[in-house]
Amino acid sequence: MTHDAQTQAIYQRARFGQAVPRGQNPAVLVVDFSCGFTDPACALGSDLTPEVEATRRLLDVARGRGFLAVFTTIGFEPGLTDGALWVRKAPALAELQLGGRWVEIDPRLGRREDEPVVLKKGASAFFGTNLASILIAQRIDTVILCGATTSGCVRATAIDLLQYGFPTLVPRECVGDRAAGPHEANLFDIHQKYADVVSLAEAIAYLESVPARAATAAG
Amino acid sequence: MTHDAQTQAIYQRARFGQAVPRGQNPAVLVVDFSCGFTDPACALGSDLTPEVEATRRLLDVARGRGFLAVFTTIGFEPGLTDGALWVRKAPALAELQLGGRWVEIDPRLGRREDEPVVLKKGASAFFGTNLASILIAQRIDTVILCGATTSGCVRATAIDLLQYGFPTLVPRECVGDRAAGPHEANLFDIHQKYADVVSLAEAIAYLESVPARAATAAG
Amino acid sequence: MTHDAQTQAIYQRARFGQAVPRGQNPAVLVVDFSCGFTDPACALGSDLTPEVEATRRLLDVARGRGFLAVFTTIGFEPGLTDGALWVRKAPALAELQLGGRWVEIDPRLGRREDEPVVLKKGASAFFGTNLASILIAQRIDTVILCGATTSGCVRATAIDLLQYGFPTLVPRECVGDRAAGPHEANLFDIHQKYADVVSLAEAIAYLESVPARAATAAG
Amino acid sequence: MTHDAQTQAIYQRARFGQAVPRGQNPAVLVVDFSCGFTDPACALGSDLTPEVEATRRLLDVARGRGFLAVFTTIGFEPGLTDGALWVRKAPALAELQLGGRWVEIDPRLGRREDEPVVLKKGASAFFGTNLASILIAQRIDTVILCGATTSGCVRATAIDLLQYGFPTLVPRECVGDRAAGPHEANLFDIHQKYADVVSLAEAIAYLESVPARAATAAG
Repeated sequence: MTHDAQTQAIYQRARFGQAVPRGQNPAVLVVDFSCGFTDPACALGSDLTPEVEATRRLLDVARGRGFLAVFTTIGFEPGLTDGALWVRKAPALAELQLGGRWVEIDPRLGRREDEPVVLKKGASAFFGTNLASILIAQRIDTVILCGATTSGCVRATAIDLLQYGFPTLVPRECVGDRAAGPHEANLFDIHQKYADVVSLAEAIAYLESVPARAATAAG
Repeated sequence: MTHDAQTQAIYQRARFGQAVPRGQNPAVLVVDFSCGFTDPACALGSDLTPEVEATRRLLDVARGRGFLAVFTTIGFEPGLTDGALWVRKAPALAELQLGGRWVEIDPRLGRREDEPVVLKKGASAFFGTNLASILIAQRIDTVILCGATTSGCVRATAIDLLQYGFPTLVPRECVGDRAAGPHEANLFDIHQKYADVVSLAEAIAYLESVPARAATAAG
Repeated sequence: MTHDAQTQAIYQRARFGQAVPRGQNPAVLVVDFSCGFTDPACALGSDLTPEVEATRRLLDVARGRGFLAVFTTIGFEPGLTDGALWVRKAPALAELQLGGRWVEIDPRLGRREDEPVVLKKGASAFFGTNLASILIAQRIDTVILCGATTSGCVRATAIDLLQYGFPTLVPRECVGDRAAGPHEANLFDIHQKYADVVSLAEAIAYLESVPARAATAAG
Repeated sequence: MTHDAQTQAIYQRARFGQAVPRGQNPAVLVVDFSCGFTDPACALGSDLTPEVEATRRLLDVARGRGFLAVFTTIGFEPGLTDGALWVRKAPALAELQLGGRWVEIDPRLGRREDEPVVLKKGASAFFGTNLASILIAQRIDTVILCGATTSGCVRATAIDLLQYGFPTLVPRECVGDRAAGPHEANLFDIHQKYADVVSLAEAIAYLESVPARAATAAG
């Protein structure tokens, strides 16, 4: 995290960056690791192989313990009216056409049929979706946030997770971006204001410390 | 609208039921006229032929003048996790499976490719959707609300339209329900508190009184 | 609940009205039992003494066991711009001026300093408020919904509770309205589609069946 | 805006940063220029005198032409339950007590009685507020976004403005932060993804190019 000593001192005085509480019923939320973002052939994509592989490791631990995994993807109708203003500000989003490959979840994540895919048309995983309802109905009390891009949809989702009241861990190895500067700058902001940026090892250790969830869970 | 004279007097004293202002850029919003609700073969459906036909008349006027039409439908993944709590309270909703016929917009409405279909997983057309973004980006200032059911998703949508600040007309002939009692009781509430319940003729006259919208409209 | 045998048969076929699951960390939500609604001197008010007293009984049980209570009230600035469209449809709402008596929670409820009062400017307790955040951060998994009016803000709140994924009980004695017809018609809809309408005795028995909550609870 | 040539090239390829459309009914939105953020005596504050003065210039132009101005402030009840998770991550927020000076709008902005103050308990001006309703009911089609802090509530609000569909200009002189690095990094992100970062002169020229708004405007 990039900022200088003066910035660090200012943030310390403001007492940002306290740890969030950690609960007993976590979920893994994977934001926009769809092919449009993980395949460099798409104008919006970049090579996120290490981040996808780290997320797969995390998902496998979570699945082994019965925890919920939720994926998001972005997709638009041909007419783009559903894209509202976003497709005007960032017209390359129009490549994310419903039914096309860029909207599919990256197959390396091994998404299971019973893991919901939330279709979103905004930056945050919560905006214009019923993600909050899914998490509440499942009595989720902690979220592990992965995905892309750190400076875009991950940051926007981290803000909403904090605002809704879901304590959140962001494993640094599991979030990626197309450019290094915005990635680091946003990890700084996320850690100071919205979530706890941790290592993948710490996130896995947390998942392993929580009692496994029965298959017939809440909801 | 069914309630007795005493109720009418109480509502008059409370000064409910004032007319909403009417703007210059209307949209038609058709809630859940999907086959699951308009085909009696579905457990959730009933014969809504007159309401569907009245809505088609309204849509044709709106289309002829270049106004936006938006449709909603309900659909769930096989695992139903996306159904959150609703599929517990009303388990017949599980019949509305994504990809199935009950989720399709009733073909008698002649939905065009450029008319967005908002996929919802709640009662209100706004809950868990980006409908507000679509309407705002298109600078919609008045909504004509049609669909089913009056006592369920139409009522819930009328509340949110009022709450968001969109003046709304509900043409009585264009909303339907599976049972008459709740239909009438909810039309009363909607008119008193959330929208103006009008005749189809009045709604069409309003659409014809507004300048037609250029094809290259806002948004 | 008022509707005829035919309506009942139709609803049974559609399998509405299933019981919601009941959790272990309930909260009591009291909607708009502010003086403007419980004092007949206000144009919006009516005598809701029995409903207020029943709610007080429920609150005292909840308080004795350490459960959260949340209140809502409606209040507007003098200029009413914050009232958006609602004050146009129902202009008597303008009487609910911030700082005035109509906005205060009815003192018979004995609201404690640590019980939050959510200021709302819409019908639903969730619309334009951070109520969801409060409930999520406190890990609330069940809501007991009380207040006024059954056909207005209680109904709107019940819809959102279902949509957000909070299982909800509505003790019939604890919700009130200015007119009997809409009260009964909306209790019918609420029970069929959004929450479980129960007796006060059943709600109290449920609260007494759940382990008391430590003072140092989540959040 | 700080990032290197490689980042710039990557963003150009992704075609971010297109200009948003500009409408005919703008509003000025001033986020958190409350004393708690503009007075260095508060742990959250810093000296934002130039940004406050630039915003006052903008406001005076807008007022002279009849455009809406909306302010936000953050404030919590003594018990902090309304602060949900945010007061855990950033405990200095507890200083922003309702009724105290840190919650008041900075008097140098000359807020008028008819200019709404939106009370928020989250980062975004939209989260847990009815700001969207105010803007929709007033038929606002363009927002000029000012305030503090660039890396916190301004960024969060810019995301939501884009998501809701409100085209937004951010006059660089009118947004401030306690530290320079996050300020610059977030201006970069905002301009690329959510809004058009412009000069104060350009924002004023835009306001002067739009027909003045009659006192008896929409809403």
